[in-house]
Amino acid sequence: MPVALTALPAMAQEAAISAAEAAPAVTVEVAYIFNTLLFLIGGFLVMWMAAGFAMLEAGLVRSKNVTTQLFKNISLFSIAGIMFWLVGYNLMYPADWTIGGWIGELFAPKSIEPVAGGDAADGYSAGSDFFFQLMFCATTASIVSGTLAERVRLWPFMIFTVVLTGVIYPIEASWEWGAGWLDQRGFSDFAGSTLVHAAGGFAALAGAIVLGPRLGKYRPDGRMQPMPGSNLALATLGTFILWLGWFGFNGASQLALGSVSDAADVSRIFVNTNAAASAGVIAAIVTTQLMFGKIDLTMVLNGALAGLVAITAEPLTPSIFASLLIGGVGGVIAVVVVPMLDRMRIDDVVGAIPVHLCAGIWGTLIVPATNADTSFAVQALGVGAIGFFVFGVSFLVWTVLKATMGIRVDQEAEITGLDVSEMGMEAYPDFVQAK
Amino acid sequence: MPVALTALPAMAQEAAISAAEAAPAVTVEVAYIFNTLLFLIGGFLVMWMAAGFAMLEAGLVRSKNVTTQLFKNISLFSIAGIMFWLVGYNLMYPADWTIGGWIGELFAPKSIEPVAGGDAADGYSAGSDFFFQLMFCATTASIVSGTLAERVRLWPFMIFTVVLTGVIYPIEASWEWGAGWLDQRGFSDFAGSTLVHAAGGFAALAGAIVLGPRLGKYRPDGRMQPMPGSNLALATLGTFILWLGWFGFNGASQLALGSVSDAADVSRIFVNTNAAASAGVIAAIVTTQLMFGKIDLTMVLNGALAGLVAITAEPLTPSIFASLLIGGVGGVIAVVVVPMLDRMRIDDVVGAIPVHLCAGIWGTLIVPATNADTSFAVQALGVGAIGFFVFGVSFLVWTVLKATMGIRVDQEAEITGLDVSEMGMEAYPDFVQAK
Amino acid sequence: MPVALTALPAMAQEAAISAAEAAPAVTVEVAYIFNTLLFLIGGFLVMWMAAGFAMLEAGLVRSKNVTTQLFKNISLFSIAGIMFWLVGYNLMYPADWTIGGWIGELFAPKSIEPVAGGDAADGYSAGSDFFFQLMFCATTASIVSGTLAERVRLWPFMIFTVVLTGVIYPIEASWEWGAGWLDQRGFSDFAGSTLVHAAGGFAALAGAIVLGPRLGKYRPDGRMQPMPGSNLALATLGTFILWLGWFGFNGASQLALGSVSDAADVSRIFVNTNAAASAGVIAAIVTTQLMFGKIDLTMVLNGALAGLVAITAEPLTPSIFASLLIGGVGGVIAVVVVPMLDRMRIDDVVGAIPVHLCAGIWGTLIVPATNADTSFAVQALGVGAIGFFVFGVSFLVWTVLKATMGIRVDQEAEITGLDVSEMGMEAYPDFVQAK
Repeated sequence: MPVALTALPAMAQEAAISAAEAAPAVTVEVAYIFNTLLFLIGGFLVMWMAAGFAMLEAGLVRSKNVTTQLFKNISLFSIAGIMFWLVGYNLMYPADWTIGGWIGELFAPKSIEPVAGGDAADGYSAGSDFFFQLMFCATTASIVSGTLAERVRLWPFMIFTVVLTGVIYPIEASWEWGAGWLDQRGFSDFAGSTLVHAAGGFAALAGAIVLGPRLGKYRPDGRMQPMPGSNLALATLGTFILWLGWFGFNGASQLALGSVSDAADVSRIFVNTNAAASAGVIAAIVTTQLMFGKIDLTMVLNGALAGLVAITAEPLTPSIFASLLIGGVGGVIAVVVVPMLDRMRIDDVVGAIPVHLCAGIWGTLIVPATNADTSFAVQALGVGAIGFFVFGVSFLVWTVLKATMGIRVDQEAEITGLDVSEMGMEAYPDFVQAK
Repeated sequence: MPVALTALPAMAQEAAISAAEAAPAVTVEVAYIFNTLLFLIGGFLVMWMAAGFAMLEAGLVRSKNVTTQLFKNISLFSIAGIMFWLVGYNLMYPADWTIGGWIGELFAPKSIEPVAGGDAADGYSAGSDFFFQLMFCATTASIVSGTLAERVRLWPFMIFTVVLTGVIYPIEASWEWGAGWLDQRGFSDFAGSTLVHAAGGFAALAGAIVLGPRLGKYRPDGRMQPMPGSNLALATLGTFILWLGWFGFNGASQLALGSVSDAADVSRIFVNTNAAASAGVIAAIVTTQLMFGKIDLTMVLNGALAGLVAITAEPLTPSIFASLLIGGVGGVIAVVVVPMLDRMRIDDVVGAIPVHLCAGIWGTLIVPATNADTSFAVQALGVGAIGFFVFGVSFLVWTVLKATMGIRVDQEAEITGLDVSEMGMEAYPDFVQAK
Repeated sequence: MPVALTALPAMAQEAAISAAEAAPAVTVEVAYIFNTLLFLIGGFLVMWMAAGFAMLEAGLVRSKNVTTQLFKNISLFSIAGIMFWLVGYNLMYPADWTIGGWIGELFAPKSIEPVAGGDAADGYSAGSDFFFQLMFCATTASIVSGTLAERVRLWPFMIFTVVLTGVIYPIEASWEWGAGWLDQRGFSDFAGSTLVHAAGGFAALAGAIVLGPRLGKYRPDGRMQPMPGSNLALATLGTFILWLGWFGFNGASQLALGSVSDAADVSRIFVNTNAAASAGVIAAIVTTQLMFGKIDLTMVLNGALAGLVAITAEPLTPSIFASLLIGGVGGVIAVVVVPMLDRMRIDDVVGAIPVHLCAGIWGTLIVPATNADTSFAVQALGVGAIGFFVFGVSFLVWTVLKATMGIRVDQEAEITGLDVSEMGMEAYPDFVQAK
């Protein structure tokens, strides 16, 4: 159909307008850069959490075990950094499953190398994703070290960390984040209340049971011997570091920043994450005041962390008010679970089991209250399956390590402190120590 | 007008070119993401300042009051996190004013919920803005805790924080940042030398007067008893944390990153902020060397902070050289105001009044020297009005708290230290304490 | 050539499509913002390294010298902040060379003022680049303070810092990053293994030789007196801070984030940087276990840092596996060089020479193994030239300072500790000190 000559300028103009409209609001390339940047910022914030765990734990152990605790934290982070590359990443995000939906790709470290140049069609840089995911693996390992403090031997602990970061975590995480069987059933764990925190807590619990409590912790008369942390300033610093890092942990788990909608969602997540932590603090203040007649700083710190753990399973869909409730219940859990563990003579030096395991389960189970795409049954299935797997395998590994090389320092070493007996180096040699 | 057939290919080509030009250099969507990202990065950096205050104050109090000081810092941050949502945000940014330009919207927490999805036309995510602004509210409260350290009771302090973060700060901040009456008169306080820092300082000053000095601080013979901080490493760490956080505080107060001009301005702000802090350090070094014959580390730390406070009212328009002068005068103020306060027997444990109040006033008053859109008279009016309001209401609240529940621990508790008497938990139980 | 009328609609459509394609995937303006943002994020992360050095060094000196060490770290950072503006920046990035390729522009501080508004054609904000580069200059100075701890006088140290940050660093860095003679020969040092770290190490080595070892460090019987650090928690914190900051140090040295390719490269750099640090830790664990029969935490911390220093010369081209090797060798160097220095009676309090100088040289020399655009000969030339210049000038400056004002505290002051003798202020006055 021929067009009238007079229509032509208008047509050209229209073409220009529709061309401008055809240009996407956010090009694929710009979205790629934003998404990658989110992973990098989130990744370095979660990396910083390793320092948070180190300070928290160094502050909550007695001064005679501080050097050892510091060492365990930097060594486990480094082990994670290597094992997740060597084994974990392909297990977790398999191109082909070894056992469909259950066990990913074995022995394929080469495929995780980020490709030079980058391809905008990927949506984000593979390297940035690897960096971010590696930090989650390391976080899982960090949770274990605090519980087992003041009595576990160095080398068995490092060997367990190798297994945890190379095999246990990647397999259970693949079930959900690697699009495995739990994901296919509709399980939802946004940033890892269960996949990271409860999993770390289950591994810690298994270790605590196999290892036994510290000498003198539970007295023959049935009472508990308090063993106060040596440096609450460090413990508070560690808590603030973790709080900060959690914005990366939850915020960057949106996995995208390349659209208006994603940017708004990341913002919601920041707001809800902070609300949950604040509520955890207030809840722990009120709970300890009521239960013990005075406020307990270490439980308040754990209240903040438990609030953060609880909101991690779903930091996007709750309102701010709901986030306060979710975090507040987390804070209560962090306080009330401690005497229960003590009654069972499970000695968790820093309270990682109440904070990461119990508040993590709470956060995961409550997701359907604000997210209609999930169900309580499947959430419970996920928690149960991951708990069964992580606790079971961890218990087995700890038991084998105990039977073969031994996992516990001898009595004299424990009384002297691991810093002198295991590492030959005191953390605070210039300060006179109280007996 | 018919066109010649031969002109058509050129016309189509032209249409293509003009279309490319019609596509904006930065689309509304991309600008939205950048602006939101600026708020999020700025927000987490300012959140980190809460840890900075905690470490600074824990390092500057005596070891017997460290646990309490740590607790106050994490609790005030959490209280701010809830109160700013429940009351503050709508008071500060009212859709409708309760009293035009003076008092914002009361009891409307729902309206601050960020809307899911996000609308590019808003320019940025409401959630990211809320997150960023919340951190400013918390910073104001952090300033108070240091001044009143070592003698204030826990619960009255928390109640004051509720009022400060829920009511006092949001109202005075609304006068300028909520487009209230001071903004309409042309007052300018870019990132809050007065709205945040001097306001916190005024609230602290009121508290210090009502509370009185620490026991034994001012001796009968008129001399002052030095009460040195227990951990200068923590105090220095806190200062570095605050310095880092200030890039978010000032930089993200540009409120936009979605254009070349904004990106360049944020960069200028980073440069000027660092220059002012550096000059504050050098000025405090020189001043303490001249005044006392030796360099005083705690005053050097306060010099850095005073330089930062001073540049906060206008970190964009000064040249680097002007920033050095503004920050340098701040550093001198941080040193010379201390003996003046002591002469008035106002006991400010960490020096928050010289740093935040005095250097904040200085920074606000000097704005017209580099920003032609402001006047000295209006800047003075703003400082005076905010000072009158914040000091007056704070004084009233502290007085009521004193008359009703009491705000000060008893003498024995103060001598023993608040950690044992109020919280039953020492910060450093393993280190033998000097008498 | 006239076109057929029937072809016109198709032509207009084609024009529209080609227009959409003509709109660049990332506009110049968006690229400008991304590039600027990279500098700002990288800059604040590297700024944070100043806190890392402060904590590392405060933790590794004895408690009687902690205040002084903290002071030196905050003062050197502030001196760098002023000197790099006043002199350094124009020396390093000259518009016109004073001596072509060797000495840049003298006395031109005005030209570094970032221009208001910003020009997209520049590619990034000049202010953001200045901010980022300033932090590298400060890092170089931070390296020196640890080596000379516990015996150097304050004012001579500050004067040396003035010369180092204003003149020595900018000149040697201009040879490569200012497009000077080394750059023209093909020398490659991506983020400064030699330009920053080895340079700082050479300056420290010169100072250590002129200053001499601490009293009692090398005993008459030829054995070495251990002088353990007073706070390993702080030292570990400092290491984690540096590790975090290094993502900014290496990542933002890509200098661009405004394309898919750049974003992917920055991600690769993050991954490789973390791998090298992890390998440094593991290598130091194994090496100290084998050499000393037990793991040494301070050497493990230095192993992490040495891994980071080693990868800094080329964090982009290596595979992850190659990064592990490069960092791992760095970790071994950090351990094995220490006894060599002790045999030469060079007293390096914190191990900055093994970490920054030796691992920096290693990282620079190994670049050609993964980067085909470089040669071993030119890399060696660069290390040699920079070493000759920095060591030579530093040695001269230290010698002149020694001859004129003296650089070392007297014996009594050294035994008492610099905190009391030089600054009159203890870092931990409440803790009873071991003799």
